[in-house]
Amino acid sequence: MLNKNILLLALQISLLGTSLGGNVLIWPMEGSHWLNVKIIVDELIKKEHNVSVLVASGALFITLTSNPSLIFEIYKVPFGKERIEGLIKDFVMTRMENRPSPLTIWRFYQEMAKVIKDFHMVAREVCDGVLKNQNLMEKLKKSKFEVLVSDPVFPCGDIIALKLRIPFIYSLRFSPASTVEKHCGKVPYPPSYVPAILSELTDQMSFTDRIRNFISYHLQDYMFNMLWKSWDSYYSKDLGKRTTLCEMVGKAEMWFIRTYWDFEFPFPYLPNIEFVGGLHCKPAKPLPKELEEFVQSSGKDGVVVFTLGSMIKNLTEEKSNVIASALAQIPQKVLWRHTGKKPETLGANTRLYEWIPQNDLLGHPKTRAFITHCGTNGIYEAIYHGVPMVGIPLFGDQHDNIARMKAKGAAVEVDLQRMTSSDLLNTLKAVINNPSYKENAMKLSRIHHDQPMKPLDRAVFWIEFIMRHKGAKHLRPAIHNLTWYQYNSLDVTGFLLACVATFIFLVTKCCLFCYCKFGKTAKKKKKE
Amino acid sequence: MLNKNILLLALQISLLGTSLGGNVLIWPMEGSHWLNVKIIVDELIKKEHNVSVLVASGALFITLTSNPSLIFEIYKVPFGKERIEGLIKDFVMTRMENRPSPLTIWRFYQEMAKVIKDFHMVAREVCDGVLKNQNLMEKLKKSKFEVLVSDPVFPCGDIIALKLRIPFIYSLRFSPASTVEKHCGKVPYPPSYVPAILSELTDQMSFTDRIRNFISYHLQDYMFNMLWKSWDSYYSKDLGKRTTLCEMVGKAEMWFIRTYWDFEFPFPYLPNIEFVGGLHCKPAKPLPKELEEFVQSSGKDGVVVFTLGSMIKNLTEEKSNVIASALAQIPQKVLWRHTGKKPETLGANTRLYEWIPQNDLLGHPKTRAFITHCGTNGIYEAIYHGVPMVGIPLFGDQHDNIARMKAKGAAVEVDLQRMTSSDLLNTLKAVINNPSYKENAMKLSRIHHDQPMKPLDRAVFWIEFIMRHKGAKHLRPAIHNLTWYQYNSLDVTGFLLACVATFIFLVTKCCLFCYCKFGKTAKKKKKE
Repeated sequence: MLNKNILLLALQISLLGTSLGGNVLIWPMEGSHWLNVKIIVDELIKKEHNVSVLVASGALFITLTSNPSLIFEIYKVPFGKERIEGLIKDFVMTRMENRPSPLTIWRFYQEMAKVIKDFHMVAREVCDGVLKNQNLMEKLKKSKFEVLVSDPVFPCGDIIALKLRIPFIYSLRFSPASTVEKHCGKVPYPPSYVPAILSELTDQMSFTDRIRNFISYHLQDYMFNMLWKSWDSYYSKDLGKRTTLCEMVGKAEMWFIRTYWDFEFPFPYLPNIEFVGGLHCKPAKPLPKELEEFVQSSGKDGVVVFTLGSMIKNLTEEKSNVIASALAQIPQKVLWRHTGKKPETLGANTRLYEWIPQNDLLGHPKTRAFITHCGTNGIYEAIYHGVPMVGIPLFGDQHDNIARMKAKGAAVEVDLQRMTSSDLLNTLKAVINNPSYKENAMKLSRIHHDQPMKPLDRAVFWIEFIMRHKGAKHLRPAIHNLTWYQYNSLDVTGFLLACVATFIFLVTKCCLFCYCKFGKTAKKKKKE
Repeated sequence: MLNKNILLLALQISLLGTSLGGNVLIWPMEGSHWLNVKIIVDELIKKEHNVSVLVASGALFITLTSNPSLIFEIYKVPFGKERIEGLIKDFVMTRMENRPSPLTIWRFYQEMAKVIKDFHMVAREVCDGVLKNQNLMEKLKKSKFEVLVSDPVFPCGDIIALKLRIPFIYSLRFSPASTVEKHCGKVPYPPSYVPAILSELTDQMSFTDRIRNFISYHLQDYMFNMLWKSWDSYYSKDLGKRTTLCEMVGKAEMWFIRTYWDFEFPFPYLPNIEFVGGLHCKPAKPLPKELEEFVQSSGKDGVVVFTLGSMIKNLTEEKSNVIASALAQIPQKVLWRHTGKKPETLGANTRLYEWIPQNDLLGHPKTRAFITHCGTNGIYEAIYHGVPMVGIPLFGDQHDNIARMKAKGAAVEVDLQRMTSSDLLNTLKAVINNPSYKENAMKLSRIHHDQPMKPLDRAVFWIEFIMRHKGAKHLRPAIHNLTWYQYNSLDVTGFLLACVATFIFLVTKCCLFCYCKFGKTAKKKKKE
């Protein structure tokens, strides 16, 4: 009986797994964003869907692979890879040189605004590359796509989907000024307990933290109104009707957020939001022989894995030496992804690699700690394998990410600009030797693994759902039909206050009238 | 290879299905609430958990069955079944005689307040029945429960769990005045697009609807403050420390809401909320021979299924005749669950039954429509099988339920008090003959069936999760640590306004000072 049930169940599952063979269009973003979306692309192909990816000719990180089910549609843009590289560099440097402390918050947002303006110029050229390419648009129309998956860092995925008359989904970690989630997606972020993006705050805020958070939200709202409004005319011009960026972005069927409650602080959200953090995580594969031998040679001390990600190519010589001399003083062996000149202070325990199999190393039983630049992908791999972290955040969401891991007790942060060798050494020793960090990392790992359904399966489920049902309108909240003053019930409260005021006015007038009429008559009578 | 994969998958599933053999305590509610929780209880037993249910000696609907894994702990209360029956009757009559129209909303809430006061008296006796029963509490402590599942209509499930030092979960469709969800659970219900409970509104509201909704929310907030505050002292007294009902209720690990987006209008919620609507639904079983023959005799016209649920025992003779004469005029055969005197106008096409296998009938291919009192359980069975509805709502959430089904185009409502035979007849004809109702019911059915995981499996998953991890604190939002003015950032805005005011004051003072000092000197000089 049990066997029969199991076989029946297996049959159902294999039927569920049957491909729909749909056509999916991807609007990707560079760098680690692409690496994350690529996992969804691979899974879709595994389920026999055909996937096309729109790639700008100036793309930096998107490597074109050959696969009959995966087509890269290259479109021309009037810039080369160096423009994207320059943008990333500006973004990194601005963030590294400015942090939103209570005294510098205004300057921080001023500097960020400069980079964002530049970014929007490039983004507009990227949009033009597709929207003004008639041949490409015709080709896309003929390809009969059923859904578009968009990374919203570069706008226009939405407008492309709308012009192709297909539903679309966003996949994002966050968007600048919370444009896509808060302003257009209508996620309510109460500033009293949900830390603003780039604020580096946690959900446990003191009174001054809450003031900072409140100001951060309002400065970001101001930035959104200043810097994103120009997209309204771009969208209106392209669609040939008066519209706004938010009206179009708000038409998304779903928002995939690349975090989960193992990482994020709980906050209110909407039914068309799915948290798929760590969808790229997978069990570790065996290491190459040379690496495995080095790792095994660490004995019971184990190893430390160290990488600052793919965006940072070279550290200064001085900084490399500061780091290397700290690493030289720990009993662990260290695997360091490092592409610059070999530091002079490099210890015998440390080996440099141009590339390391990060996930396989983090999943190795001998790994004791992970020194990371705090990219979401890397942090999720550490959570998946339960490895405590030393965070050296550089830009983007990385400072927010390490704030989360610190608050959950699975990491310690060091500041790349200001750290000394002994800072890094002491931090590393603490993370490796104080068992609480490992315990907390394991706790996050258990939460991550113990979900009703794996994040990648959920992402693919909802993409297929939207293909099957041609959308997911049943998840769309009615707030999208309201203006800001209607949503905040300002018209209703205004009307009710007016009613109360009129009532008080009339009652007062009546009383005065009665007093004047009858009061005076009474006085007169009394006098008589 | 495929076979090997399928077998591996089946093995994984059978391992996942391995029992934890935990001990679960249930704090149930009467009527259809119990029927719904019973499905979870049965599934927990199937997974080899031991379940104990706390049942008051005056319980009305909870039938005690014999099963070694299911224990009914009976506790004494100073009232009999007739008290519960009386309460239900009062509640039904108050709701039937009062509807929250714009002109009667104040009276409606006044009448509801009377019933709620009476209800709280009974609820307090129920709580006393357990909390003041030292032997029972000792026995429960010794039973080493790992989790308590509470229906919060009767308070105290929470306090029992806290005294036993075990985590607890709520299972609810809604709570009066949104106590458990909004006030204590901190779900943000924006009055601009989320209809208040018992308001009979939808998410598409006109300006006047939004005024009504706004007032409904505030009247319910007022009711909560008036009628639920007495529980604060009850809880404080029992726990021997100053506390509030909401502080205790807010300690729940999770809130299971017995709806889903096939039924509900999308609204913002929190990560510790799981929507498990329709968890009791299952495929139809074959009908008993006599019933099947009657159903088959309907030919291509099919049948109509009619029940007003288990709470309503007898309709008046007059009302029964109005209904029967309408039913007599349709070509369909009708199966009517009816316990009163046989109506004189009963047609040959209509058969009366003391009980009908509702789910099996709704799942029968010959069923064309469902006449229902709009209980959530029944509506979910209709959604599951894609059957359009004629709603005759009576009390509780039933008016809200039919408002939802009407808005989604799967039902029409008739008013039991005011309807004539032709009203019911025309409504029935419309629902049966206009294909849009069937199409919309099927659309809801497809949404219901196309979820990443079945609602019952999700409910059981999270109960087991909480047993495995001794809670789900990672899903708990920080709002629970804030006061209402902190949550609304009133202290922050107050402080910032004070800063701005001080700044303006100082600048004005400085200007005045400068003007007085230098302006006058200048004037003096000019004069000289």
